[in-house]
Amino acid sequence: MVHLPEQPVPSSPAPTAVPTSADVARLAGVSRATVSYVLNNTSAVRISEATRRRVHEAAEELGYVPHAAARSLRAGHSRMVLMPAPRVPVGPLHSQFFNDLQWALGRFDYTVVQYGGIGLNGDEAARAWAELRPVAVVVPDGGLGPRGVHILKRSGARAVVTLGPERVEGAHALLLDHVGVGHSAGAHLLARGRRRIGVVVPGEPGLEHFSRPRLAGVRRALEGTGATVTELPLTYEEEAAARLAGRWRSLGLDAVFAYNDEYAMLLMRALLDAGVDIPAGTAVVGADDLMLGRLLRPRLSTVHIELPSGRDLAELVDRVVRDPGGVPEVHQVLGARVVHRESS
Amino acid sequence: MVHLPEQPVPSSPAPTAVPTSADVARLAGVSRATVSYVLNNTSAVRISEATRRRVHEAAEELGYVPHAAARSLRAGHSRMVLMPAPRVPVGPLHSQFFNDLQWALGRFDYTVVQYGGIGLNGDEAARAWAELRPVAVVVPDGGLGPRGVHILKRSGARAVVTLGPERVEGAHALLLDHVGVGHSAGAHLLARGRRRIGVVVPGEPGLEHFSRPRLAGVRRALEGTGATVTELPLTYEEEAAARLAGRWRSLGLDAVFAYNDEYAMLLMRALLDAGVDIPAGTAVVGADDLMLGRLLRPRLSTVHIELPSGRDLAELVDRVVRDPGGVPEVHQVLGARVVHRESS
Repeated sequence: MVHLPEQPVPSSPAPTAVPTSADVARLAGVSRATVSYVLNNTSAVRISEATRRRVHEAAEELGYVPHAAARSLRAGHSRMVLMPAPRVPVGPLHSQFFNDLQWALGRFDYTVVQYGGIGLNGDEAARAWAELRPVAVVVPDGGLGPRGVHILKRSGARAVVTLGPERVEGAHALLLDHVGVGHSAGAHLLARGRRRIGVVVPGEPGLEHFSRPRLAGVRRALEGTGATVTELPLTYEEEAAARLAGRWRSLGLDAVFAYNDEYAMLLMRALLDAGVDIPAGTAVVGADDLMLGRLLRPRLSTVHIELPSGRDLAELVDRVVRDPGGVPEVHQVLGARVVHRESS
Repeated sequence: MVHLPEQPVPSSPAPTAVPTSADVARLAGVSRATVSYVLNNTSAVRISEATRRRVHEAAEELGYVPHAAARSLRAGHSRMVLMPAPRVPVGPLHSQFFNDLQWALGRFDYTVVQYGGIGLNGDEAARAWAELRPVAVVVPDGGLGPRGVHILKRSGARAVVTLGPERVEGAHALLLDHVGVGHSAGAHLLARGRRRIGVVVPGEPGLEHFSRPRLAGVRRALEGTGATVTELPLTYEEEAAARLAGRWRSLGLDAVFAYNDEYAMLLMRALLDAGVDIPAGTAVVGADDLMLGRLLRPRLSTVHIELPSGRDLAELVDRVVRDPGGVPEVHQVLGARVVHRESS
């Protein structure tokens, strides 16, 4: 961090008090209830235009903003949808999904808040989320158990939705089945006549939630065919990829499913540098269908993954908030299909 | 979205009431004040171990979680640091920075909340943030004016910090000077003997906050040298890159600063496909120093950008929260240096 010389800090003035609705009421010459009706746009109560204007002007003059928490204390719930931040670095697919979801929930007049939960786990995390009294919670990548769902519901959350490989008791579930991603890749390589298939397993912590089911999917695709699977641990570093490429011939593989496009680009580069012929000697398949994969030569084959739409998820959340009594819904939402290019 | 057949929804049972601290007090046979002291870990008040245990057991049994909002209403402020979500798609650099910041603020016992503000602008956004009564607000990419800073402070925010190209009156500023990024690239290309320099300007909305100052930086580096700058509008699509590459010879350029590594990879691929010799005919420089740039042939030259550390920013936030009266601090925090590889 490059610091500019710091300016001299004068002695602190006494902080001015935060204006309250009582201050607004006093200045406007109305009751606090009237202030609340006007600023929360309550249409049930008839209030004259002149009074409304007086309240708005007083609020403006004092710099008063209603307190969402006070409002949610009165109402018993907020319009806040809380989404814990994913615990692993997110790719462009997830960013796009989150933006869509945020936009779609905004159309239903919800506020989306992403909660930074690094260092919190399980029930402890659920308790921290519950303290904010969200009306709905969308959990992106596991870590929530049935007890956590119970804590959230007891604190007033009407909808708890998980996105992950398995359903959690008491919560609605959008199942993201990464087994299908691996299965697509395995079936494709088998159809291309490959029999000795390596599967990259990233060494970075947190990615095992995705890599394990993908590996299982490849195994399932190959079941009963006599084709073999070899696990290939790999960290996302050039040196690690070069080491793996250096012992490639001794592994005797004719194909590799490289976890995703980024690992595939890393490994394919190292294999080409080591003189491996792609795809003749080894076929390479990634996943995610990033544009960069099309820019490589040979062009990278990949598994195109379809996430649920933010709009569908927003509709589920709103439906459950309005009618929270139903049996938890379960939807299978991850689509996977191979995009065949030159590397396989 | 692939839907499983929906389960039949039984008629909704009446929702059970959310337990309150009064319920906990009743079950534990103590006052509400005692419940509050125990659950908020107030050390100023002497309470016996037995009573503490009774309160915790009652809270556990009822599934009671304190309400952060109620606590912050009493205390006058929360421990919440609010960070509006960036309005443009974030790259891996920003994700890393946000995770660092979250972790560092967590060490100071703050909770980081990212607010999804799509569709809100200026003072309207500031008002929405103020409703949550954060004790500090960190604004990542512009859009906040002096009036917004005032609204936030009036609602009780003790620290308002902006990350951006310019300071905002009343707020602390970490200045991210993207002019320096362009200047580094321009000076490098000039030193490599280039005189007719193209600068990619992405067509995607929102990126102009970064691309305009980078372009200005290249111009500044070339001032008085007789070298020329040509703006090259480009959207992030293969077809657009191919069209630009198709008329490359008519442009008469001998170098291009391609905004960042992703645009550089896209354009370099199109130029190579169009038979342009890199770097002999045209030098190419990106920015961000992504690992993928090293995997290309020729290896991509790039501007390495150093963001402020999450820890330094967390220390600034905590210092200002504890002593909010000082003159706003201004720090220059964006480092930029060229990493010279094969493409320039």
